[in-house]
Amino acid sequence: MRTLVFGDASLIVRGEVRVVTSLQPEDRRPGKPSLPGGLAQLGYVQAAIDSARMGEIDAICTAPVSKEQITRAGVRFMGHTEVLAEAFGVEVMMLMDGPRLRVALATNHVSIAALPSALSRPKLVGQLALLSASLRPVVGRKPRIAVCGLNPHAGEGGFLGREELDVIGPAIADARAAGVDCKGPFAADGLFAQVGRMPFDAVLAMFHDQGLVAAKALDFARTVNVTLGLPLPRTSPDHGVAYDIAGKGKADPLPMIEALLKAASLCRGASKKR
Amino acid sequence: MRTLVFGDASLIVRGEVRVVTSLQPEDRRPGKPSLPGGLAQLGYVQAAIDSARMGEIDAICTAPVSKEQITRAGVRFMGHTEVLAEAFGVEVMMLMDGPRLRVALATNHVSIAALPSALSRPKLVGQLALLSASLRPVVGRKPRIAVCGLNPHAGEGGFLGREELDVIGPAIADARAAGVDCKGPFAADGLFAQVGRMPFDAVLAMFHDQGLVAAKALDFARTVNVTLGLPLPRTSPDHGVAYDIAGKGKADPLPMIEALLKAASLCRGASKKR
Repeated sequence: MRTLVFGDASLIVRGEVRVVTSLQPEDRRPGKPSLPGGLAQLGYVQAAIDSARMGEIDAICTAPVSKEQITRAGVRFMGHTEVLAEAFGVEVMMLMDGPRLRVALATNHVSIAALPSALSRPKLVGQLALLSASLRPVVGRKPRIAVCGLNPHAGEGGFLGREELDVIGPAIADARAAGVDCKGPFAADGLFAQVGRMPFDAVLAMFHDQGLVAAKALDFARTVNVTLGLPLPRTSPDHGVAYDIAGKGKADPLPMIEALLKAASLCRGASKKR
Repeated sequence: MRTLVFGDASLIVRGEVRVVTSLQPEDRRPGKPSLPGGLAQLGYVQAAIDSARMGEIDAICTAPVSKEQITRAGVRFMGHTEVLAEAFGVEVMMLMDGPRLRVALATNHVSIAALPSALSRPKLVGQLALLSASLRPVVGRKPRIAVCGLNPHAGEGGFLGREELDVIGPAIADARAAGVDCKGPFAADGLFAQVGRMPFDAVLAMFHDQGLVAAKALDFARTVNVTLGLPLPRTSPDHGVAYDIAGKGKADPLPMIEALLKAASLCRGASKKR
């Protein structure tokens, strides 16, 4: 396992550094965001994408970037995940992978009002297949997946919403027919109450807060954001740049360490598969 | 503190028993639900309501009942909470009160599609006032309340939904003007990531899974279901009847014990207030 760091010429790190920028000292002061610094952050991501395209790397672990600085520099930037999905022309899915819980999101940045129409049977089937295939090398066998309902009590037989009967249930049946080991839809609160003793390797949550509230309440620091669906695994800590404590020695490195270790374990899994 | 148990003549318990039924032995076999048994369960709740009306009791702690058996006996029964709210002619709110997190629900059994229209500014203001007044005797000062947004990232400035700008934010401002110490709307996942170190005494979640996933994932057994808004506190464990393990000595009594202790602490708080 080798690490390759895409960054500035001023970087002093163990491992190989691929120099992407040579920022002026005033543009790389800790906790003092600058526009050249913001653009440089985006440059590192793009350099990693180029490197991935050339087959030089087996996984990407991204550090936080400042969406605000990149946007202020005049570049339309939604986030790493969107940049990566666009670069590789694929649909991606977020998996929060923690020591006690793995939870993937069927929808992510979607308003509550738009949720019912954002779920579709074929999309869910594809997501279940992707989750199953992605976790198989990690789990070492066919992963067992629990699927949440959309509504309280998973709709309670149609009484609290019909998406479970009309969309989610049929998608689970389709995915099972295609060989995915998935069950549900389960009431989310009852399912997450069983964390640590649930007979599943991962949960597919229907929306942002349903899945992320559980993942973050249980173990924020050790839960890694994994992007599934790219040609190579991508991980990331789930925190931001924290400019307010930059350079002060106060930041907790654990989330970044966990993200790097997760990237390593995912590409080990992928090479075993080959 | 005295305990009064509403139940069957066959009960052998410490504390005073108010005999409501004298069931035949075949109708009170553990794990063998019967229609007379189901109706008896409802009778105990109604006897407790009558007792509360006569001022005999300061709090109610309900044990699980079988919605299925009561319904099969021909009685329309949605749950204890609904029976109590109707008996006292009040709007109630569910609070999940655990050792690490207190979370109340602005909406409960509402489908996701109906959520946006179920939230209203005056209703939220009333709920914030109720939560504040209910917790004041327990907390010993004005409670600090965090309010969740409805949408991912609390709507991200209108980009992921407008309910935060149009309804929740204004309701928070109104409640603050009325003397409630509340802040928000916060992104739910970020807020619940801070459990154990958040500077708030309680959270008002906008919907069922947003609040209950956090409460149950963190500490299911020790989290008590508290009904706010009734003339007297009511608590309940959040599990069901578990007929499959009834009489086998396998049930964990902790949730019921926590619910009884919570009822006691809430009526102590209430008497201090008087």
